[in-house]
Amino acid sequence: MSILVVGSVALDTVETPFARAEETLGGAASYFTTAASLYSQVNLVAVVGSDFPREHLDFWRGRPVNLAGLQICEGRTFRWAARYHMDMNARDTLDTQLGVYAGFHPVIPDEYRDCELLFLANIQPELQMEVLEQAPRARLTVLDTMELWITTTRAQLTEVIQRVDILLMSEEEVRQYTNRASLVSGVRYLLDLGLKHVVVKQGSYGALLFSANGTFFSAPTFPLEEVIDPTGAGDAFAGGFLGYLSTVEPNSDGQYAIYDIRRGVVHGNIIGSFVCEDFSIGRLRSLTMDDVADRYRILVECSHFDPLWRFGA
Amino acid sequence: MSILVVGSVALDTVETPFARAEETLGGAASYFTTAASLYSQVNLVAVVGSDFPREHLDFWRGRPVNLAGLQICEGRTFRWAARYHMDMNARDTLDTQLGVYAGFHPVIPDEYRDCELLFLANIQPELQMEVLEQAPRARLTVLDTMELWITTTRAQLTEVIQRVDILLMSEEEVRQYTNRASLVSGVRYLLDLGLKHVVVKQGSYGALLFSANGTFFSAPTFPLEEVIDPTGAGDAFAGGFLGYLSTVEPNSDGQYAIYDIRRGVVHGNIIGSFVCEDFSIGRLRSLTMDDVADRYRILVECSHFDPLWRFGA
Repeated sequence: MSILVVGSVALDTVETPFARAEETLGGAASYFTTAASLYSQVNLVAVVGSDFPREHLDFWRGRPVNLAGLQICEGRTFRWAARYHMDMNARDTLDTQLGVYAGFHPVIPDEYRDCELLFLANIQPELQMEVLEQAPRARLTVLDTMELWITTTRAQLTEVIQRVDILLMSEEEVRQYTNRASLVSGVRYLLDLGLKHVVVKQGSYGALLFSANGTFFSAPTFPLEEVIDPTGAGDAFAGGFLGYLSTVEPNSDGQYAIYDIRRGVVHGNIIGSFVCEDFSIGRLRSLTMDDVADRYRILVECSHFDPLWRFGA
Repeated sequence: MSILVVGSVALDTVETPFARAEETLGGAASYFTTAASLYSQVNLVAVVGSDFPREHLDFWRGRPVNLAGLQICEGRTFRWAARYHMDMNARDTLDTQLGVYAGFHPVIPDEYRDCELLFLANIQPELQMEVLEQAPRARLTVLDTMELWITTTRAQLTEVIQRVDILLMSEEEVRQYTNRASLVSGVRYLLDLGLKHVVVKQGSYGALLFSANGTFFSAPTFPLEEVIDPTGAGDAFAGGFLGYLSTVEPNSDGQYAIYDIRRGVVHGNIIGSFVCEDFSIGRLRSLTMDDVADRYRILVECSHFDPLWRFGA
C-alpha cells in the first residue's frame, strides 16, 4: 500500500560538537520518504528550486518513490542551518531560507488520489489542510508539527488536529500546546480533540503511545553507541511507523489493530535510531530490512521481563 | 532476607510550583528504608539529632525496620531545602545543614553483621567505604552517589565503585563521571571498573540496565497523572530494586539471575513512581504489595509488543 507525504525538502548545513556537514539532503519529507520507501512506495509532494542537486532525485528514482508531485520551481531550494549542543538533544537554528517554499501550495497529482495512508510532515498547518482537502480517500492520516506553528498559527493547527487520526508531538510540544504540566493530562486534552492516537516523541528516550481507548504503550529505546547527527530522527520515526503500517491490513472496520500500531511505534524507534548514526539520510541509503529486523529482535530482547511475577508466588 | 542500608535521614523542606512541605521526613535512607520494608526487614544505619520527631521512629517501629544502627546524637538533624522548577525534573538546593552528620561515622551493630544485601545510599564515599569494611558478608552490594562526590571526592568514589556489584547513577552523573558524551560508552567505562551491572536512572523516562555480560534492559515507565514531589524517587527506586531481590534466591554461584535483576528494575520504577505522588514518604505509608502488583501488571501490558514480527512474514 503506497503512502502519500507532503512536507519540506531542503539542503541542510549541520554542525555538531564533533563534525559538520554542508548542504546535505534534508527536510522532513526527505527523511520520511527515504525511510518509508524501505517498506512501500512513497508518493512525494514537495517543492525544490532549480539549484536542487540532480543526484538526490536520481537516488529517489532508484527506490520506490514517485516524484510526480515534486514541483521543481525557478529559485532556491529551502535551506536550513543548525548547530547542536554538547548533549545533542538541544540545538540552535542558525539560518532558515524558505526559498521556493515561500510561495508553495501543494498539488496532489491524480495518480496519488487513491492513496490511503497520508503523512502530513512538518509544514504550515494551512498547507497541511490543503492536502487533507485534496485527499478525501485517505483512511489513515498522521500529523507532525513544530513549536513554530503552535506559537504562530495555533488556530489553524487545531483545525488540522481535529481532522487527522494520529498526532506525533515531542513532549515539549505537548506541554506547549496544551499548557499543562502533566504530560498525561496534556495527552488527554489532545485525544479529546478527536484523535485516535497520540505518539509522544521523547528523543533518545523513545516514544509513548496513548490511545483514545485509554491504553498506553511505552516503546523501548535503542541506546546508540554514538550519535553523529539527530536531525531527521522524528521524520524517520514517522517513516518507520507509517512504513510498517503500509505492510499490514487494517481490520474490517478500517481501523488498525492496536498491536500493529504498537509495532509501528517500535519500527519508528528503530528507523529513528539508524538515522542518528550519520549525517543527513546517510545511514538510510544502505539500510536493509534485515538491519531493521536485527534491531527489532534486540528491542524485543532488551524490553522483555517476566510478566508473571506476583509477590510470594 | 534482610537488607542493610546506610545513608542520610533528614528533615526536608520542599517547594514545588504548586505546593510546599516543611520539615517532613526526608533523606536517602528514609526513602529507601520505607520502600524496602514493604518487601523485607531493613536494618538502618544512620544518625539523627535530638530534635528528630519521635513519630518517625514510631512509624518505622511499626514496620519491619531494625533501628539498632540508628544513632541519636545531641544536636540538630540533617536538614535540606529545595525548590523545584516548573517541569519538576530540575530543582535548586536552597539550604543544606549537615547537623549531626558533620561528625558521623557509621557503626554496624553486631546483629546486622550477617546481612547479605547492602545498599550504600548517597553519602560521602569514605563513609560508604567504612561500611563495606564492616560488612564482609555482604554478597550483593549496591551503590548510589551524587554529583557532589563525583566533583569533590572522585578518587574515593572510584575506590568504592571498584568494591561493589551494582552502581545506580543518573544519566547526567554517568556523563559527568566518565566525561564521555555517549551514554553507552560511559557505561562501558563503568563496567570496566569491575561492576556487574550499571542502572542508569532517567527520571520520568525510567531506567536502563547495562550488564557486564553485554546485555541491556530498557524498563518501561509508568506515566503519572500528576507529580506532587519527585524527591526521593531514586532512593525509593533502590528500595524497590533491592526489596524485590530480597524476596528471591540467587543462583548456586551466589549471583542473581538476570531476569530477577530485570524484575528488580521494574519494581524500582514502580516504587519510584509511587513516591512522586505525594510529599516525603507520604504515598509509601499506605502502599501495599497489591498496589505494586497492579502497577506491575500495567507495566507488563503497556510494554508488550509482538516479538515475532518479521517483514513479509
